[in-house]
Amino acid sequence: MAERGVIEGVFLSTALDLQELFADALAPHAETIRLRHPHQIEDPEAIRFALCWRPADDAFKPYPNLRLASSIAAGVDSIINCPSLPGDALVTRVRDENQGDVMAGFAAWHVVWHHRNMRHHIVHEAKHEWARLVSADLRPPRETPVGILGFGLMGRAIARAVRAMGFPVIAAVRHHPGDNAMPGIAFESGKGAAERVAEQASILINVLPLTPATRGLLDLDFFNRMPKGSALIQLGRGEHLIEDALLKALDSGRIASASLDVFDIEPLPPEHPFWADDRVLVTPHQASDCSPRLMARQLARAVQDMAAGRIPETVVDRADGY
Amino acid sequence: MAERGVIEGVFLSTALDLQELFADALAPHAETIRLRHPHQIEDPEAIRFALCWRPADDAFKPYPNLRLASSIAAGVDSIINCPSLPGDALVTRVRDENQGDVMAGFAAWHVVWHHRNMRHHIVHEAKHEWARLVSADLRPPRETPVGILGFGLMGRAIARAVRAMGFPVIAAVRHHPGDNAMPGIAFESGKGAAERVAEQASILINVLPLTPATRGLLDLDFFNRMPKGSALIQLGRGEHLIEDALLKALDSGRIASASLDVFDIEPLPPEHPFWADDRVLVTPHQASDCSPRLMARQLARAVQDMAAGRIPETVVDRADGY
Repeated sequence: MAERGVIEGVFLSTALDLQELFADALAPHAETIRLRHPHQIEDPEAIRFALCWRPADDAFKPYPNLRLASSIAAGVDSIINCPSLPGDALVTRVRDENQGDVMAGFAAWHVVWHHRNMRHHIVHEAKHEWARLVSADLRPPRETPVGILGFGLMGRAIARAVRAMGFPVIAAVRHHPGDNAMPGIAFESGKGAAERVAEQASILINVLPLTPATRGLLDLDFFNRMPKGSALIQLGRGEHLIEDALLKALDSGRIASASLDVFDIEPLPPEHPFWADDRVLVTPHQASDCSPRLMARQLARAVQDMAAGRIPETVVDRADGY
Repeated sequence: MAERGVIEGVFLSTALDLQELFADALAPHAETIRLRHPHQIEDPEAIRFALCWRPADDAFKPYPNLRLASSIAAGVDSIINCPSLPGDALVTRVRDENQGDVMAGFAAWHVVWHHRNMRHHIVHEAKHEWARLVSADLRPPRETPVGILGFGLMGRAIARAVRAMGFPVIAAVRHHPGDNAMPGIAFESGKGAAERVAEQASILINVLPLTPATRGLLDLDFFNRMPKGSALIQLGRGEHLIEDALLKALDSGRIASASLDVFDIEPLPPEHPFWADDRVLVTPHQASDCSPRLMARQLARAVQDMAAGRIPETVVDRADGY
């Protein structure tokens, strides 16, 4: 039986134990929302919402009164694409300004990693070797365009940070915000915007959401549009990237170096060629996470809004996919 | 014999072969200025200016008509402190906005290196290990104050970049510029400003000029003011830092990690303990260099201004030391 006023929810994930991960963060909201694993639920009709990360295809089936499905993060693709998601359920995500800061710092770090060839310094430091790079070979930041694919909360935060280091920024956007919308940032919009950004970018950062239109976007044809010797910083989703195509583009010299934080299979298997490739820097899906406490707070508020018939602030457009 | 209109100069350095380093950059200015090594000069009275980097104590003695001494970079301490520098000589430096960008990117990279513990990822990548850090342990950028010592062209460029990644910035300045002079940047001014910045900074970046007041500033007393577990990013001059004091502060845990780009002795000797210390990241004086072409252009203009009785734009205040 639900306590008076407590709204009942379910954890739905094939990948993570959400109860274990978020127990501490959810505890302060115990008087508002209660979440359990599917096997702990006696009365599925009482379930009004789900907290999700990669739910199983039939995950939503047992819950006829479920009206809200929330992601634990910014990505909602696995929820929206879940065949059993009720057609009228609201889908919400986390909107975390701190996560934007954290992502911006991570992306800026990789921009400098490639621009300054910091791998060189790490390698020589390990050998106790003083090995200066010739500074005349360094391309000025002002002549090194950085492209950004995806211009939501994350993309905008990255654009500000990269711009502040002196790099011109070109962002792919759905709707052109008008010239001078953000000083020093140029935009490509509409069909083919991502490709036109790629054609101009010495360093390309991907933070797109995963949708049918962006799945597999980073393929060989795409890489062949990029200027010779470019760098790729892949922080979106593993499914954006055709991994074999990247290896080919590295071998041809089209792409000189890459930072990869997300992969088709995670954890990246120990035998995967990316690990041993000095042109590639692998990080373990570490770019940014939402704050669990903020996630719990936004979830509790969204569930209360849903129960009161209001549209939660953190709702996404299911048709757009983000 | 000087050609008509060509103003004669001399290279003065105990550390670098300036003729070799800057031959290409100076070539386009051959009709305005001509520079030679001291041993190539037949008529020392014809010499009106010097291009310098760590000149010998008596370097200026042979040149009674020298009226301008220019640094190849932003630092002028070794020129101003040279005992043989004529009391009435103008001292000029390079002012390179691109160098500000380059320095900002380098400093921002080290901020993220310490904030995100990127050494962890480099170490595990080398072992082909997927080793995530617990994101709940990550202190939000907004709660991680970054202090900046030195607020000239370099310090301001760094402040903008670090601020854009979400970190609060506190800068030590000589004169307080007024609140809201730069949004998101707080200032400490006057006597003890550097120490007060250190007391508040989770991550401290040094880009001070070297003057009698800043030599040896980074000593054990200074480190003991910093919050426990802070990080130091040392991009100023080797002479700012008491190296033994830093090792003590690391051993006590007062300072958790450091990035060092400049040293008492360069190249840093292979047996120096900094190399083998995992808490310390050593880079080979690589933070930023002036553009040689810009240096040559600013030198030629400064020499022409001097010859015409004008004050060059790139002149420094000899009393202030920068």
